[in-house]
Amino acid sequence: MTALQEQGRLAKAASYILSTAGTAKKNAALEAIAEVLTNRRDEWLAANAEDVAAAREAGLRPALLDRLALTEERISGIVDGVRQVIALPDPIGRVDRMETRPNGLIIGRRRVPLGVVAIIFEARPNVTVDAAALCLKSGNACILRGGKEAIRSNRKAAELMRSALEQAGLPADCVSLVRDTSRETASELMHLDEYVDVLIPRGGAGLIRAVAREAGVPVIRTGEGVCHVYIDSEADLDMGAEILCNAKCSRPSVCNAAECLLVQEDIAEAFFQKALPLLDKYRVELRCDEKALRVLGDRGVPAEESDWDAEYGDYILAVRTVRDLEEAIAFINAHGTGHSEAIVTTNYFKAQRFLDAVDAAAVYVNASTRFTDGGEFGLGAEIGISTQKMHARGPMGLEELTSYKYVIYGGGQVR
Amino acid sequence: MTALQEQGRLAKAASYILSTAGTAKKNAALEAIAEVLTNRRDEWLAANAEDVAAAREAGLRPALLDRLALTEERISGIVDGVRQVIALPDPIGRVDRMETRPNGLIIGRRRVPLGVVAIIFEARPNVTVDAAALCLKSGNACILRGGKEAIRSNRKAAELMRSALEQAGLPADCVSLVRDTSRETASELMHLDEYVDVLIPRGGAGLIRAVAREAGVPVIRTGEGVCHVYIDSEADLDMGAEILCNAKCSRPSVCNAAECLLVQEDIAEAFFQKALPLLDKYRVELRCDEKALRVLGDRGVPAEESDWDAEYGDYILAVRTVRDLEEAIAFINAHGTGHSEAIVTTNYFKAQRFLDAVDAAAVYVNASTRFTDGGEFGLGAEIGISTQKMHARGPMGLEELTSYKYVIYGGGQVR
Repeated sequence: MTALQEQGRLAKAASYILSTAGTAKKNAALEAIAEVLTNRRDEWLAANAEDVAAAREAGLRPALLDRLALTEERISGIVDGVRQVIALPDPIGRVDRMETRPNGLIIGRRRVPLGVVAIIFEARPNVTVDAAALCLKSGNACILRGGKEAIRSNRKAAELMRSALEQAGLPADCVSLVRDTSRETASELMHLDEYVDVLIPRGGAGLIRAVAREAGVPVIRTGEGVCHVYIDSEADLDMGAEILCNAKCSRPSVCNAAECLLVQEDIAEAFFQKALPLLDKYRVELRCDEKALRVLGDRGVPAEESDWDAEYGDYILAVRTVRDLEEAIAFINAHGTGHSEAIVTTNYFKAQRFLDAVDAAAVYVNASTRFTDGGEFGLGAEIGISTQKMHARGPMGLEELTSYKYVIYGGGQVR
Repeated sequence: MTALQEQGRLAKAASYILSTAGTAKKNAALEAIAEVLTNRRDEWLAANAEDVAAAREAGLRPALLDRLALTEERISGIVDGVRQVIALPDPIGRVDRMETRPNGLIIGRRRVPLGVVAIIFEARPNVTVDAAALCLKSGNACILRGGKEAIRSNRKAAELMRSALEQAGLPADCVSLVRDTSRETASELMHLDEYVDVLIPRGGAGLIRAVAREAGVPVIRTGEGVCHVYIDSEADLDMGAEILCNAKCSRPSVCNAAECLLVQEDIAEAFFQKALPLLDKYRVELRCDEKALRVLGDRGVPAEESDWDAEYGDYILAVRTVRDLEEAIAFINAHGTGHSEAIVTTNYFKAQRFLDAVDAAAVYVNASTRFTDGGEFGLGAEIGISTQKMHARGPMGLEELTSYKYVIYGGGQVR
């Protein structure tokens, strides 16, 4: 047995205990985690300072250094996040349906944890605690594999959380961190079928695609976001400009930010008159198809084929004219990643048609794509935004980290 | 583009049309299928006769020849199955939850089809129609890949169904059959990520494991059934004997049949006195651990290590004594396939503990494992019994062939 297999075995054994631990015990463990992260934050900050120093020496970009760094304030935020998870309702044990069949069998569908959830993520050390808290509350043991830049911070966070779990009377192995950050160990984790029930990669599109391609265990793809805003010829153009600018510029690095504007060609010129003043404030680069370029002139640059599938994560917008709604829908279904898509229109039937025909986790009429988020959707915290259709779609809260089992109360029935 | 890629592209395009087709149109297409399969059954029988003749020449076992053969009566049964699917409620379009958020966004979760469902199955030609009917009703296009023995029957069934679809005004490509039955084409289908949303293998454990190991597209594992019956020391032993015999002998080839008896050691002898007369009728071979062998003497044979994980599909039963309930639970969680597990006991607390702690799709108290079935559970027809925890667990009816999307009605909201 390799070290990782042994870790998997221990996580699986812990998951059976956690699955029947009950809400009070799980909340007590989360409270113990909140307390230990607060009381021993100096240890966590010290470990993080070593990570930051090493990353600076290795020449990490300032933006990434900033994401890596912990501060007193950030730790407070993380601890607040844990307490928010305590406050969320526990989905485990709820029976969705229960009925008595004609033969007298009483059959119900009871919510249960998935079991062992593995999470592969990049440099942000807050993910370690966020993910562990959501897994714990939903009764899942988790195996965390963070990026190498945050290894010292993550080890300390895992150590602190494991001590809190023991203190609360739960197995430390409900939360564990993969000890090394090598490619080989990550690959082994992706094939740990015997112990891992589901693998969730969190990070950039490159990471997610690589994991989905390689993994042998079931994967939930999250956070790939090539989102579109479609401005219909019957749109309120002021509203359209506000929505577009918000979707593109309010936080361009996140997955629910828009990457591509589709605009019906007959109102393209009028729309740009409204939209350009807003986009100009952020100096948004516009990569345009031919017709859009004719309207925009020097303000745009010609798009290349790859622009229609690009997730820029930056102040760049692909711009494409379409003849009509159907062309917009077909383009979105061909080029979107199934994340969030919006139409701006005053026409009732076009709005309904867009909602029906666009194949994405979240489909909006007259609102910004930026709302796709567990908090905004009323699910509480989220572990990611699923862009696949199997199991869960869109923001994944506690309930999306569960499965179910049929429980059957019999009285000696045979078939 | 290969032939299969083109088939995938056409199926995807058809799936968009089917996803918004509405219940009346889908039911009309199913009725047209029922009619064409009835009216042109001679063509289907003729194609099947060629398959059967070829298989007989190739030396296929009589039991498999029987599974391959169509008759007037079997076709009537298949057509009845299609009409039962017509009668089932359509899950598509139902909004599970809809609420108005504090910012005025109206957010609902609407049931949608998965998209394109690929199904790889073995020789039984009825699966072609059963699977297509369930996919159609749930709004999914399907790509079917049957076994080589049934290729002529399957081609004819696909041709007839496609003509019915066109007649009902839906794209023929809602249902298509992979043209050849080569290993290479099956492998290509398992990696058709761009077009296939989910792949469901139906057949023996070997097929399912091979597909799960190889596939790049998301897979739902179905039908692996190493099921246990546990006889507790506080069981009604007559009831236990009836349940065990039913679970093992009523239809040993199916996945919800029991493969292993666990019996608490202090009542093993008393239990066998009740159970043996029933098991003897079917000449069930008993493969026993040491303690059971001491009780059973010549009636048993020694089990090998592999017997504890075997899916016999035959009149063979692994027999193991356990000290107590906890040992039984641990053994089931280690050796079961997550399908169906039963306890026989009169003790309330042991019953509840078994329901809580056993990790399987269906957990029974005082009833036979043989009830795990879409019809018995009230779901109507089923496409298979999922033994995984992601997406769907246990019998998969129409609802389990769906996903959801968030539909958001806004009034100009930005974030």
